[in-house]
Amino acid sequence: MENVDLIINARWLVPVTKDQTVLENHAIMVKDARIVALLPQEQAKQLYSANVIHDLNEHCLIPGLINNHAHTPMSLFRGLADDLPLMTWLNEHIWPAENAFVSDAFVEAGSALAIAEMIRGGTTYFNDMYFFPEATARIVDKSGIRASLGIVVIEFPTNWASSVEEYLHKGHQLHDHYRHHPRINTIYSPHAPYTVADKTLEQIITNAEEMDMPISMHIHETADEVAQSLKEYGVRPLERLKQIGLLSPRLLAVHMTQLTPDEINWCSQAGVHIAHCPESNLKLASGFCPVAELHKNDINVTIGTDGAASNNDLDMFAEMRQTALLAKAVAGDAAAVPAHTALEMATINAAKSLGIDKEIGSLEIGKQADIVAVKLSDIETQPVYDVVSQLVYASSRDKVSDVWVAGKQLLNSRQLLTLNETKVIQDAQQWAIKIGSQDQ
Amino acid sequence: MENVDLIINARWLVPVTKDQTVLENHAIMVKDARIVALLPQEQAKQLYSANVIHDLNEHCLIPGLINNHAHTPMSLFRGLADDLPLMTWLNEHIWPAENAFVSDAFVEAGSALAIAEMIRGGTTYFNDMYFFPEATARIVDKSGIRASLGIVVIEFPTNWASSVEEYLHKGHQLHDHYRHHPRINTIYSPHAPYTVADKTLEQIITNAEEMDMPISMHIHETADEVAQSLKEYGVRPLERLKQIGLLSPRLLAVHMTQLTPDEINWCSQAGVHIAHCPESNLKLASGFCPVAELHKNDINVTIGTDGAASNNDLDMFAEMRQTALLAKAVAGDAAAVPAHTALEMATINAAKSLGIDKEIGSLEIGKQADIVAVKLSDIETQPVYDVVSQLVYASSRDKVSDVWVAGKQLLNSRQLLTLNETKVIQDAQQWAIKIGSQDQ
Repeated sequence: MENVDLIINARWLVPVTKDQTVLENHAIMVKDARIVALLPQEQAKQLYSANVIHDLNEHCLIPGLINNHAHTPMSLFRGLADDLPLMTWLNEHIWPAENAFVSDAFVEAGSALAIAEMIRGGTTYFNDMYFFPEATARIVDKSGIRASLGIVVIEFPTNWASSVEEYLHKGHQLHDHYRHHPRINTIYSPHAPYTVADKTLEQIITNAEEMDMPISMHIHETADEVAQSLKEYGVRPLERLKQIGLLSPRLLAVHMTQLTPDEINWCSQAGVHIAHCPESNLKLASGFCPVAELHKNDINVTIGTDGAASNNDLDMFAEMRQTALLAKAVAGDAAAVPAHTALEMATINAAKSLGIDKEIGSLEIGKQADIVAVKLSDIETQPVYDVVSQLVYASSRDKVSDVWVAGKQLLNSRQLLTLNETKVIQDAQQWAIKIGSQDQ
Repeated sequence: MENVDLIINARWLVPVTKDQTVLENHAIMVKDARIVALLPQEQAKQLYSANVIHDLNEHCLIPGLINNHAHTPMSLFRGLADDLPLMTWLNEHIWPAENAFVSDAFVEAGSALAIAEMIRGGTTYFNDMYFFPEATARIVDKSGIRASLGIVVIEFPTNWASSVEEYLHKGHQLHDHYRHHPRINTIYSPHAPYTVADKTLEQIITNAEEMDMPISMHIHETADEVAQSLKEYGVRPLERLKQIGLLSPRLLAVHMTQLTPDEINWCSQAGVHIAHCPESNLKLASGFCPVAELHKNDINVTIGTDGAASNNDLDMFAEMRQTALLAKAVAGDAAAVPAHTALEMATINAAKSLGIDKEIGSLEIGKQADIVAVKLSDIETQPVYDVVSQLVYASSRDKVSDVWVAGKQLLNSRQLLTLNETKVIQDAQQWAIKIGSQDQ
């Protein structure tokens, strides 16, 4: 008998592998943060012992979900201003609120609220883009979740930094500080084509190559962005970025609702990854990302929630479902983006886009034990003909019962183990009193 | 002190009235199934007593949601066959399964599963279209929910009836049997333009006028339906129905994803109501209902889930949210269908479409006490700047804690009080074993 740290017995297990297999009555063995074996329960019983054993006989295990685009601290603005035209929303509500309130303490409270929400919803990794990422990093460290934290760069001053040099300097400090942290990565995050100059992008590309880091950027979010670029640069944003040399497998292009066949071809040729944020694109009326068409062109599409100010949640189950539903309607094809594909997009494909698919993104031997248990025995998910269909189309994040990251349990029967739920809510409420009283 | 049956004290109360008011720290008083008073809690304490008092200090009360288009027994097919082209799905899976299994006992088990799901999700009324409605009626009666049950008519034989005459005869028997039932209504439900002949529709219109009943019908669900009609009748379905005289305030047109400006104008002039089923339309790649455009033309749009075979849930919170999100993207206007409008569509507007808005659809004195409590204190819905935004964009059906219909409690702290949850699930599982073994 080999002794391991943790054994989880589950009714079903969807490893999210190429063969789209679904395992029944299997056990997953975890030791030193990694998956060391995956066996039928009968076999596992004879080969492995552990101090901690979970029997989840009504549950399906899946890899932890990866939220590939977020602005987590903006959870403190959730519902502050909705149903407004984009520029009214930004100019009269979000930007004034950011100017007035964004600070290290704000980001710490907002990140805690967001991370608590994400863990409760089965998200074990998020790719974030916001100011004061050092405050977010502290909560990532404490909570046990994983993250890629953005080295945000924007040409104008904010509460966090006043120049491109300062953004990069502070970002590099963050990178150096967490270089050896097992759960914190950094990612270059120039904000968008309309807020970052060519020279800055060239410097970021050079840095990213030297340091072997990915780059994430909002690109072609709206038709207006494209029209402005045509006016200012004489070309659409993606053509300008292509000329600068940004299109490569290092690039995670976020949103991409406005795409010509040529542009899709460039992205395919260059190996660009995409972070699709369906609910944000709908709510802000940005447009429709042509997911099925991107898949036909072998482009890797992943899924993000965007910030809670424009969503209004960080719910990767809802985004997975929305991705599968919306892609069908946009393509006019009910067979587009089937359930297992949506699950891949929210797990292994996101890991690929960040260059970490050897470590996370699927439940396979040798990988990190980032595991989510979804209870399928409630009325809402009965009967069960097809487990993956049930996960994507019928279940929802409230069915997530337990979450482990690197073999450490973060959620136990829906209770957070690493964050103080009451304090997280109280802090958020205190910020909301201040923010709400200032907003018209 | 006046004694009433029930007092509910709530932190917030959204009555869904024209002034879009949100009440804070109010009490709602219920007697003999109706709302008799709505007052600030301090005043209520001095004027009313009751044996049953609920203090819901973290909750918002809203009117029970109305699912305005469903095929509830199809919940037994949930996840049986997904991600398939429409005709493959129908021809190779759904229709063979219906032929093999649909019966009184099937409909009873499927209705129980669906109604249990709906009550747990804050739905207190559903408008159903399926065979063996007498079996659904028994579960409606027992469970305490309300429904409009369809007098389904279709030109071809099914397990329920073999001719138009028999469909109508059985439907009228249902109507007569439940004529005086306080919670069961009937509604003519000719299936669709391509499955019901002109003569049959003329008879239904005459009957509906004599009996003062509404009519519900799938119309313009897909582009294919429109093309077929052009081939067969030389006109689009809606023009044919207009010629027959079906367009009137009696008509609830379901889906309506394919609409010309002329057709929108006809519906507006005639006072036709629409049941929008956004998730079904997306999942089956049927098209996009132009909700914002319909609103501009003063057409009353309501919301339905469609059957769980094409959704795959009966979640009116998700449909409300989807309605608000999708309408913005389709209209290219982030201000389209704001949160309160979505809530109206799922409550009072549906009641109007069925001619029962004097009885249900809002929390107002004199109306039936169909009340849903939504808990807003969890992490997912914090902080609260705008209660209605929080209800529509951030909360979800698992936040529904308590449900009352006609003042009778059907859900208490998420526990069903009128249906046996364990038995409902066991019955569904037994059906699924039979159905799953027959499906390829």
